[in-house]
Amino acid sequence: MARVYNFSAGPSTLPEPVLAKAAAEMLEYGSSGQSVMEMSHRSKEYEEIIKGCEELLRKTLRIPENYKVLFLQGGASSQFAMIPLNLMKTGQADYVITGQWAKKAFGEGSRYGQCTAVASSADKTFSYIPELVASTFDKSADYFHICMNNTIYGTKFSALPQTGDVPLVADFSSCILSEPVDVSKFGLIYAGAQKNMGPAGLTVVIIRDDLIGTARPETPTMLNYKTHADNDSMFNTPPTYAIYICKLVLEWLQNDIGGLEKMKELNQAKAALLYDYLDGSKLFSATVSAPHRSIMNVCFVTGNAELDKEFVAGAVKNGFVNLKGHRSVGGMRASIYNAMPREGVEKLVAFMKEFEASH
Amino acid sequence: MARVYNFSAGPSTLPEPVLAKAAAEMLEYGSSGQSVMEMSHRSKEYEEIIKGCEELLRKTLRIPENYKVLFLQGGASSQFAMIPLNLMKTGQADYVITGQWAKKAFGEGSRYGQCTAVASSADKTFSYIPELVASTFDKSADYFHICMNNTIYGTKFSALPQTGDVPLVADFSSCILSEPVDVSKFGLIYAGAQKNMGPAGLTVVIIRDDLIGTARPETPTMLNYKTHADNDSMFNTPPTYAIYICKLVLEWLQNDIGGLEKMKELNQAKAALLYDYLDGSKLFSATVSAPHRSIMNVCFVTGNAELDKEFVAGAVKNGFVNLKGHRSVGGMRASIYNAMPREGVEKLVAFMKEFEASH
Repeated sequence: MARVYNFSAGPSTLPEPVLAKAAAEMLEYGSSGQSVMEMSHRSKEYEEIIKGCEELLRKTLRIPENYKVLFLQGGASSQFAMIPLNLMKTGQADYVITGQWAKKAFGEGSRYGQCTAVASSADKTFSYIPELVASTFDKSADYFHICMNNTIYGTKFSALPQTGDVPLVADFSSCILSEPVDVSKFGLIYAGAQKNMGPAGLTVVIIRDDLIGTARPETPTMLNYKTHADNDSMFNTPPTYAIYICKLVLEWLQNDIGGLEKMKELNQAKAALLYDYLDGSKLFSATVSAPHRSIMNVCFVTGNAELDKEFVAGAVKNGFVNLKGHRSVGGMRASIYNAMPREGVEKLVAFMKEFEASH
Repeated sequence: MARVYNFSAGPSTLPEPVLAKAAAEMLEYGSSGQSVMEMSHRSKEYEEIIKGCEELLRKTLRIPENYKVLFLQGGASSQFAMIPLNLMKTGQADYVITGQWAKKAFGEGSRYGQCTAVASSADKTFSYIPELVASTFDKSADYFHICMNNTIYGTKFSALPQTGDVPLVADFSSCILSEPVDVSKFGLIYAGAQKNMGPAGLTVVIIRDDLIGTARPETPTMLNYKTHADNDSMFNTPPTYAIYICKLVLEWLQNDIGGLEKMKELNQAKAALLYDYLDGSKLFSATVSAPHRSIMNVCFVTGNAELDKEFVAGAVKNGFVNLKGHRSVGGMRASIYNAMPREGVEKLVAFMKEFEASH
């Protein structure tokens, strides 16, 4: 077996000990005589798994008691509709447009109410986080939406908008669990699992109690947060195996890594390895300037599309896969989520240095 | 390792060779250097998996070319809303109420239009399939909905309602892939994967082309069949690992079992083992009469709740788990999906005989 270094933007690399444990437990979990995949979601064994997963997530992110944790399906894309359907009462919301996903969220929200783009970085291919002026925010908006980390463009909010009493709603898909976050600053946090939490097919929503129970009448039962909050994410069969893997990932984060503060240190150090090299390189350059940089998705270019292509092809041959940038940015993108070992980044930088030396 | 015989109604037992293969490939699929769980859904490797899964499903169920196969999330419960949102044009639909799930589908449909319960078996705890008289059907209905196999009550439609030009929509969650089906008789077939197809978190929809593209304006993008049909189930990240397991299950069904005709024979024989014993037993009796019996979910009672309890507890000690019936029916239920080996049913019957002899 030769595992590659997988820089995919998502689904993406998982901690090897998690995969090894999942493999070992595939035919029998504990002494249950069953795979987790085969377990009734109403069984005692499975209840321990889903409850354990929630407890670990609450502990890791220090989620306050007045927030519910929901294990849902349908990806962040489903949240783009669930948010307006559940939260729009006056029918107005503010959005910051920092990339394709923020734009999609805005588009879907606009189908259900009056959404305002309070700021956008579309003018420079979303390569920065626009300045936000609180006085321009709608004080009577039902919510204020941001995409915390922009996977495609490699940008990240370094400060939160001051939305006052307006609930801040944030897409954390590509940065959840990458560093501590003050959940109490948000009304709702949502994230697809397939970057830092586990397999695709699980979406985690962390929602303040007072935002539950106000869905518009046309809201499908399965898109109503109250349905899932009232039933501890067991209204219908949840994505049981994905939740189990998420629990293993959280155990790894707590036990092998040492918690979220330590994870942040490791992530910052990994990102610094890349950015420091990029800032000094004569061949490669980062597409995002320092204050706006994501520590999860690092975008860079040579400035020569042919050379980019040669680099990506050479990287694959050396065991570094999925480094091609999104077509809207071009160049390269290294997604260095929690599970990417430091060694993977070090070896990538070494390969980039070699490539630079020979070009 | 001691694997139990798991008679869970879902999630439920999976073929052991499928689990063994999944375990063996967990850290590296083929020579990809990655787990399937870690693969970009846009990668060539993964494209082969999802396309391969669809091809196998089409081949196995002989799905006509004018039907799309969609790999969705959210369970059958999400279909209860997607169906009216996408199919209701005049705003009328007929439903047959054969159990809790059919009732839930009817309830959700009624939130979006005028739904009529053309027949119901609620009067006898859904222990039979009501007679359907085509002349009572609404000829201008947008669709006619049935639940093909009723998991909780152990009943199954043995003949299809004659709905003429009105599209027949059917919940196949607990009987898909159990025997051949003439897909062309249906407008739409849907099924949660967690009984005969794979892990929870995957929902398969088989939909006739002409029923796509007519969604009501308020339909969330992710609940619009057209969104997924136009993007080959890749509008957003699909539940990649669940689809991979589904492909392994289909390979097992084709290669190890020998196809759907053979699967039907095996399933009928397994069900006959149980029903024949029940029909001759002086202690146990089936709750459903012969013409209405499911070959997937076999419900039975002793007529004495205390004895039922003793039986279920004794069964667990002997390695037969999840035999407790649904609280609305009481007694016992043996879910004997495709992956339950004949041996499991034989041993269960032997245990029942012993129990009967000693009581």
